[in-house]
Amino acid sequence: MPKIVDHEERRKIIAKATWNVIAREGLGGASVRSIAKEANLSLGAVRHYFQTQEELLEFAMQLVQEQVTERIMEHIQSHLPPKDQVLNILMELIPPEEKKIEMQVWLEYISYKIRKKELQKESVHEVIVEILHRLQKAGLLKEDILLEEEIVLLHALIDGIALHILMGLVPIERGRIRYLLEKELNRIFVE
Amino acid sequence: MPKIVDHEERRKIIAKATWNVIAREGLGGASVRSIAKEANLSLGAVRHYFQTQEELLEFAMQLVQEQVTERIMEHIQSHLPPKDQVLNILMELIPPEEKKIEMQVWLEYISYKIRKKELQKESVHEVIVEILHRLQKAGLLKEDILLEEEIVLLHALIDGIALHILMGLVPIERGRIRYLLEKELNRIFVE
Repeated sequence: MPKIVDHEERRKIIAKATWNVIAREGLGGASVRSIAKEANLSLGAVRHYFQTQEELLEFAMQLVQEQVTERIMEHIQSHLPPKDQVLNILMELIPPEEKKIEMQVWLEYISYKIRKKELQKESVHEVIVEILHRLQKAGLLKEDILLEEEIVLLHALIDGIALHILMGLVPIERGRIRYLLEKELNRIFVE
Repeated sequence: MPKIVDHEERRKIIAKATWNVIAREGLGGASVRSIAKEANLSLGAVRHYFQTQEELLEFAMQLVQEQVTERIMEHIQSHLPPKDQVLNILMELIPPEEKKIEMQVWLEYISYKIRKKELQKESVHEVIVEILHRLQKAGLLKEDILLEEEIVLLHALIDGIALHILMGLVPIERGRIRYLLEKELNRIFVE
């Protein structure tokens, strides 16, 4: 009888091994071989999921996006007031200490896409565009703001803070970061 | 008679070849060999400047820092009012189209340093810390601001916008970005 393998479970194990190798060695050091070793699996088991370095990176990034999307969906389904919901979602885009590795995979991913000139859309950007458009449609934003500029500002703040946390340059706590983002939202929300 | 080589000139040629290779292939694809080929020089001529991949990256980054520092020094020596001076300096940290490659080298540099857990200080961060401290000392900033938080916000904005320009996600012009940064400064400057 063939061994029953939980494919979803195995996919996650391999993706996380991929994250570890990328975080340690960069994309340049990540290969099917190094990831198989990290995951304690055969080359064949890993090759089932990706073969080229590009597929490897897409595979690693896919799980990051799934996990972030899942966390965001929970906030969307909550019954909190809009501003609290938005703040909760924005804070998901700034990973806490134990999720820094997601951000590191993201950083390798965008570096790769910039090099290949293949970056057409980006998920954090899409989340922010979507949030601000929804808020505007719901009449929750001041009328004199320029949405295009507010998207640039909020996206820069979120990715900038996330990047600087990864770089170890942010000396303030998450509660304080949340408070700063709240002040930003207060600036554009109707009273 | 030995050929006279302008060392400073050659150093810059090799550094720019290094930028090109890093921008195209990433750090993983950059080697003494690929850079010698890009610069049309012998392996020996390139090995004079760096031998390991880490030295290669430090070498490439050094010229980025020198050039940005040079541009910043010009603004510091200008006789403009403080806010204009600061705005000019901040805009140097957001590279225009033709200087995007500097930002790409910077991105590879910080990714590498994050992986190696070697990032102790970072030059853009140091510039922003220095600017805000000087402004505060000169009595130009409001008394009720928390400098630590303003550093986090301004640094995030600058690096976030720069990164997103590199990613092709910023649809607004430099003049508009400057205006947004000016509004940020107005918030913390004394009237």
